[in-house]
Amino acid sequence: MKIIKDPKIMQRIIWNLKSKKKKIGFVPTMGALHEGHLSLVRASRKENDITVVSIFVNPAQFGPHEDYRAYPRSFGPDQKKCKAEHVDFIFYPRAQVMYPAGYATYTYVEGLSEVLCGQKRPGHFKGVATIVLKLLHIIMPDHVYFGMKDYQQYIIIKKMAEDLNLGITVIGLPIIRERIGLAMSSRNAYLTREEKEEATLLSMALFYAKGLVETGEAQGGKVVKSIYRILLSGRIIKPRDIDYISIMDSKTLTELKIVQKPCVIALAVRIGKARLIDNIIL
Amino acid sequence: MKIIKDPKIMQRIIWNLKSKKKKIGFVPTMGALHEGHLSLVRASRKENDITVVSIFVNPAQFGPHEDYRAYPRSFGPDQKKCKAEHVDFIFYPRAQVMYPAGYATYTYVEGLSEVLCGQKRPGHFKGVATIVLKLLHIIMPDHVYFGMKDYQQYIIIKKMAEDLNLGITVIGLPIIRERIGLAMSSRNAYLTREEKEEATLLSMALFYAKGLVETGEAQGGKVVKSIYRILLSGRIIKPRDIDYISIMDSKTLTELKIVQKPCVIALAVRIGKARLIDNIIL
Repeated sequence: MKIIKDPKIMQRIIWNLKSKKKKIGFVPTMGALHEGHLSLVRASRKENDITVVSIFVNPAQFGPHEDYRAYPRSFGPDQKKCKAEHVDFIFYPRAQVMYPAGYATYTYVEGLSEVLCGQKRPGHFKGVATIVLKLLHIIMPDHVYFGMKDYQQYIIIKKMAEDLNLGITVIGLPIIRERIGLAMSSRNAYLTREEKEEATLLSMALFYAKGLVETGEAQGGKVVKSIYRILLSGRIIKPRDIDYISIMDSKTLTELKIVQKPCVIALAVRIGKARLIDNIIL
Repeated sequence: MKIIKDPKIMQRIIWNLKSKKKKIGFVPTMGALHEGHLSLVRASRKENDITVVSIFVNPAQFGPHEDYRAYPRSFGPDQKKCKAEHVDFIFYPRAQVMYPAGYATYTYVEGLSEVLCGQKRPGHFKGVATIVLKLLHIIMPDHVYFGMKDYQQYIIIKKMAEDLNLGITVIGLPIIRERIGLAMSSRNAYLTREEKEEATLLSMALFYAKGLVETGEAQGGKVVKSIYRILLSGRIIKPRDIDYISIMDSKTLTELKIVQKPCVIALAVRIGKARLIDNIIL
């Protein structure tokens, strides 16, 4: 396993591998790797000759009052996990190299970037689309892998790849959950033990809502209300902590008043220092 | 010479050529080809194994009251000119294929896109950056060629390629002029004979300004004033027809009060149905 920090060197290595007809799989991450990330690595290993993992905490996708500085960084353990999974390259650039002084170019997916998390985190998906596009230009993969915990991100990147004729297959893989149901996330590290227990309400509410729909509930509003009730049944989450609960078309992310499959139910809730997101696909 | 209309087929052909280590040169155009375009084709032919010319009148770079519909289209003659220059492929997609229903992804170079033509044509450079990025993803060239008549466009694309880690060399080539000095442009077709004569004032003023600077004039304002005076010395151009006259740093496009090389003097003037631009590099 090699660790590459320079985009041009990374690009040269990839060109060389591609000229030998190697299939490249790419897993972009912000590090603090957990089983969710590793499930992507394993899929990439199966479907490609070479697997590249990038580790880059992207300043452009954090708002001015968000957790860019606090975001967990753990390159040592991340490196060990990648090695154990037989990753071929870690791309690990510095922020000043990805965004040098005078950096000015941004990419934006209209519509999809403005709902849900985009409403609460203005500029977030502009930062996400831009860094992913830059990384795709550097790694030039055949397949790129995203976890569907960040469902909106996955849909936006898929749309960007299609709109911009990238010729890259964007693959979304299922959420990996802890035994207690909580979706794995690097931000779970912010939670105290009590908060983590409370956080299980998120997946619990989503699973309950899925059951509700599958047994015949077709009113989007009623499904959302039932989730709301469950989230507020604990001791920590208050109404102001709930950023959104939404049931929507799984491709266009438009809100559904009448539930129609394929759809996705997604939510964002603040608990302690963490802003947690989760979703379930129907 | 082959004419390809489908982006995926074009991409597949290019992948195949690249796997054979062919160097790809690319000349993006909006058609209505003139000697300016052909000078780019000739440079590409010299420096690459394969030359691709795209012909696409890009709706995304025209404002709602601009000349998208009226813009000259002449695929028959363009095809003949390309064949005579031994172009290998013309990429000739339809607008609905490049921007299908629901298209949503745009790229933007901040700062550089907001001055000069960007001020008078809001959204123009967002449309330019987006279509060029799409075309670069499809053609994946080693070298891409632009005429420096559209100097701001050239600088924006160069910045985009660098910022987005495209790994593509952006080459700008000198303006080709008619004998009377007028910069070649597809939009010159809009001019009557009298207007065309008047239009020679643009290059005349720029050449005069260059001489002025080279013989010691260092006040940007004075240089601009001298251009203004020459432009208004004819019978057609009125003060309201002059969109801008600017002397600026050749890389950052910031206005220069004190002239310092390398710099560029650029102007935009409306004559009849045409909006003409021209510039000179010092």
